[in-house]
Amino acid sequence: MEIQYVLDTFFALFAMTLIIFMVPGFAMLEAGLVRTKNVTSVLTVNVMIYAIASLSFLLIGYEIAFGSWEYQSKMSQWAFFLFQMAFVGKVVNIVSGGVSERSRILPLALFTIVVGAFIYPLIVNLTWGANSLSETVFDISGLSDLAGSTVIHSTGGWSLLAAILIMGPRSGRYREGKVKVIPASNIPLVTLGALLLWIGWFGFNGGSVGSISTKESADAVALTILNTNTAGLAGAISGWLLTYYRYKKFDITMILNGALGGLVAITAGPDKYDIYTPILIGAIGGALVIWAVPLFDKFKMDDPVGALSVHLVNGIWGTLAVGIFIDKVSIWSQLKAIVGVAVIVFPISYFVIYTINHFFTLRANDEEQFDGIDSVECGMDAYPEFRRGL
Amino acid sequence: MEIQYVLDTFFALFAMTLIIFMVPGFAMLEAGLVRTKNVTSVLTVNVMIYAIASLSFLLIGYEIAFGSWEYQSKMSQWAFFLFQMAFVGKVVNIVSGGVSERSRILPLALFTIVVGAFIYPLIVNLTWGANSLSETVFDISGLSDLAGSTVIHSTGGWSLLAAILIMGPRSGRYREGKVKVIPASNIPLVTLGALLLWIGWFGFNGGSVGSISTKESADAVALTILNTNTAGLAGAISGWLLTYYRYKKFDITMILNGALGGLVAITAGPDKYDIYTPILIGAIGGALVIWAVPLFDKFKMDDPVGALSVHLVNGIWGTLAVGIFIDKVSIWSQLKAIVGVAVIVFPISYFVIYTINHFFTLRANDEEQFDGIDSVECGMDAYPEFRRGL
Amino acid sequence: MEIQYVLDTFFALFAMTLIIFMVPGFAMLEAGLVRTKNVTSVLTVNVMIYAIASLSFLLIGYEIAFGSWEYQSKMSQWAFFLFQMAFVGKVVNIVSGGVSERSRILPLALFTIVVGAFIYPLIVNLTWGANSLSETVFDISGLSDLAGSTVIHSTGGWSLLAAILIMGPRSGRYREGKVKVIPASNIPLVTLGALLLWIGWFGFNGGSVGSISTKESADAVALTILNTNTAGLAGAISGWLLTYYRYKKFDITMILNGALGGLVAITAGPDKYDIYTPILIGAIGGALVIWAVPLFDKFKMDDPVGALSVHLVNGIWGTLAVGIFIDKVSIWSQLKAIVGVAVIVFPISYFVIYTINHFFTLRANDEEQFDGIDSVECGMDAYPEFRRGL
Repeated sequence: MEIQYVLDTFFALFAMTLIIFMVPGFAMLEAGLVRTKNVTSVLTVNVMIYAIASLSFLLIGYEIAFGSWEYQSKMSQWAFFLFQMAFVGKVVNIVSGGVSERSRILPLALFTIVVGAFIYPLIVNLTWGANSLSETVFDISGLSDLAGSTVIHSTGGWSLLAAILIMGPRSGRYREGKVKVIPASNIPLVTLGALLLWIGWFGFNGGSVGSISTKESADAVALTILNTNTAGLAGAISGWLLTYYRYKKFDITMILNGALGGLVAITAGPDKYDIYTPILIGAIGGALVIWAVPLFDKFKMDDPVGALSVHLVNGIWGTLAVGIFIDKVSIWSQLKAIVGVAVIVFPISYFVIYTINHFFTLRANDEEQFDGIDSVECGMDAYPEFRRGL
Repeated sequence: MEIQYVLDTFFALFAMTLIIFMVPGFAMLEAGLVRTKNVTSVLTVNVMIYAIASLSFLLIGYEIAFGSWEYQSKMSQWAFFLFQMAFVGKVVNIVSGGVSERSRILPLALFTIVVGAFIYPLIVNLTWGANSLSETVFDISGLSDLAGSTVIHSTGGWSLLAAILIMGPRSGRYREGKVKVIPASNIPLVTLGALLLWIGWFGFNGGSVGSISTKESADAVALTILNTNTAGLAGAISGWLLTYYRYKKFDITMILNGALGGLVAITAGPDKYDIYTPILIGAIGGALVIWAVPLFDKFKMDDPVGALSVHLVNGIWGTLAVGIFIDKVSIWSQLKAIVGVAVIVFPISYFVIYTINHFFTLRANDEEQFDGIDSVECGMDAYPEFRRGL
Repeated sequence: MEIQYVLDTFFALFAMTLIIFMVPGFAMLEAGLVRTKNVTSVLTVNVMIYAIASLSFLLIGYEIAFGSWEYQSKMSQWAFFLFQMAFVGKVVNIVSGGVSERSRILPLALFTIVVGAFIYPLIVNLTWGANSLSETVFDISGLSDLAGSTVIHSTGGWSLLAAILIMGPRSGRYREGKVKVIPASNIPLVTLGALLLWIGWFGFNGGSVGSISTKESADAVALTILNTNTAGLAGAISGWLLTYYRYKKFDITMILNGALGGLVAITAGPDKYDIYTPILIGAIGGALVIWAVPLFDKFKMDDPVGALSVHLVNGIWGTLAVGIFIDKVSIWSQLKAIVGVAVIVFPISYFVIYTINHFFTLRANDEEQFDGIDSVECGMDAYPEFRRGL
């Protein structure tokens, strides 16, 4: 029906727009979390990721993922493309955030092309997409993952893990068995960024229902957004209580990362739960972040924004949760896909990043890190008039 | 009809999303208005209010307000809930903003539970909601208040008044009969926050029409958003002219507070006015802010963000305005509800805050205020690398 | 049909809301680009422009542009007005950005009234609007300009050119044949602002299709938003590559200005191109910015935010591009309208600004510029607690 076509197109554009708010969301979050001497380069990377990943997906990736432009006929193909395109940059954002304060920009830009044109589209092909490569690679199409706990967040997480193993920690971060605390430089930006991500998630998950034009789908969209939000609330509260219990202080970066953890965790199945289960899923998601952040530090996996804890750990947890809480969903299919994505994404990413690193040197050296990536790569201070202390 | 159900669900989700932009809106506005030593705690409070108030409303408050989850049948019940949930945190935001720079976080979190689970739902029950408590308490259901000049803004305002009376002013604010001027620390954040609130208001008031799926309701929604915006414009201009006339300077905090005053004032009846009346209502709203801010200081009611002037004074003015300008609306019903909400909210809030204060000490002491709430409560500076002067 | 009326009203309100995000967008972009001593005044100007231009359009301009309030019958007239109103302030934003760091606020406010009430409405009348003045003035209604490469961006650009010629450069900007580089004070704000503008553009261009309620119009809207975004991506990448090639550094202000240049360039015809042409149009748009910014400096036309390069140069390029790439569109009609708008807007703006300047002194003197516009006009520092270096 024409009216359904119109409604679903409009809704996809609405959802896409919300996701695009995640571009400033990630940019502000990361700009706030790093030191001032790395702020400009982090912002540059964020803008370039959006530009490069999206264009790579337009020119190459989309057809790998979905087979053809006419994949969708129930809404405007352009709207469907835009909604799918809005996802791509997020995968690279996860990587770039986790290697910030020590990575050079050009190699990251090259890696962005590979992710946007090939790695992410391959995973989409095997899961949400055309499924044409399932026989060539292997079949994980049994996965139940509404909006990408595995497809987006674990994919980004495994890539990031590869990058961190290759690049090593920021210089001076682990010394004499101790972890040097490096405080976030701008808490309002961290808060703004996390809240924009939160809002973007409504579009991410709500739009992934794929339609709003029937009573059933409208209910599913509304339930999805409600459950998405609830998991974020619960993650924030669990992040708060656990850090408060341990340190007797309110740590807003952990409250916000808890919320993001909850949001990642709910992403695999927000349309399937009743309205109370997301409280549990989100609270566990927040707790996992609080538990994982120091754990990765223990293994000297340096991740300035907590991306491994938020995206990889909770991507796995969220995907399992659908199998645990929803009868119809097989936990073995979920596990198979979790492992499947890992054994595809991690080695490919490792190989690609290793190769790029070989030719272009991904890691800024100690002196450059001391001076800050901004002066080396951008020649531009983020706040040139504010005198620095610390 | 199914298509109307779909459209009204979609529209409620759209409006809800706009309101959620008020979460970063309030957070940025308040983070910009307070001194840097209190910025992290203000942000922490804002995020926690959203999490705690929303979850309290989900678990307890909603059923008090509306009687049952199936209250609405013309749109998805989940969308209706989300739209209503988006309001709750705003009431506490009004309180927390007005007591910032001197309040501890934990007692505020406890108060947030009480407002989200009980106080605000009670007022909604008596006005927009189930009306099941009208006989037990008293009947103010004759109130004409589209989106909450009284239900939201006065409720928050009376609670804030109680909090200010109990907590007293920031240390050093009133000394030897003089008011110490404490400048806002970050004007771009103030501006960003106020503009996000402005945009959120389109969802707040437009969504409160409750439907967009007929020609009449579509016209009503569009008129509501037009009039909402116009009152904001007029409030900004009136705030500008009055401060410029008095001080020969452009004071952007007063221009923005004037706009917010105009927006609060229009909120009771934006669907009822012609397109020119909001100019008058908004201009008076802006003027009331300019007049009330120094007045509250005269009475040593210290309100760092001007919340009493914006929300309480204009909540009352906006509610009266509907009675004054709209023939069918009885000014006595409006007055009755204004007084009714006052005599419910003020004493309950006073009692609750007094009790919380007794057990948890809401007010940071002079030394803690001197050091800043951030270091005492959060152990985290908002801008650790910028050297402070002043 | 009623349902189409409802859908088109809803869609216009959605698009309008996205455009209003350009208000904080412009405000943050400009606040980030100027020095800290001028940030408060830039923000004040941005808020006042929105208030004054919109109210002038409501009271006077709209009827000049469209003849009557009942111009539109296919959607709510209030929604149509709101969508059109959202454009007005943008024209003045282009001017105010380009003369920032040296302009006084009150004369700008007066000029805003003239643009919002007369100059912009006149151009709309001759192009998108009532066309009632085409015989009196001259006929440029053959122009093909979906969302205002000429009507908005060139109009703002010609006004800005007049203002720059009258006001001259910032004091000390051009000395002994050299251009003094004045770095942006806050790169995160620049990034946030540009990204909000980008998102606003989806509403600007998408909404200009005028309808989403049929399959054809839904496709047109989705294609428009897709092509708009693509041109922005291409502009960013072209801005990046060209500055990197020349300076071996990543210059985020040029990447973002390149994106904005691409967005301006696509604005005349995003509904008409296939999905690959915008890559070319946007890339050329980005290149034009990189080429024009130093060129204007060569002629000592001081434009702190690059507004002439982004809006005027690309407004012209984008309008020509429709004539070049689309067979049905006559390049002569495009040229005629480009010239027509120039010969109307430039002399009128010149006369109005000259007159205002005569009575109110638009330009702050050297000493005032040295102290900063903030202290002279606002008596309020944007960041009073951060110690300044540089």
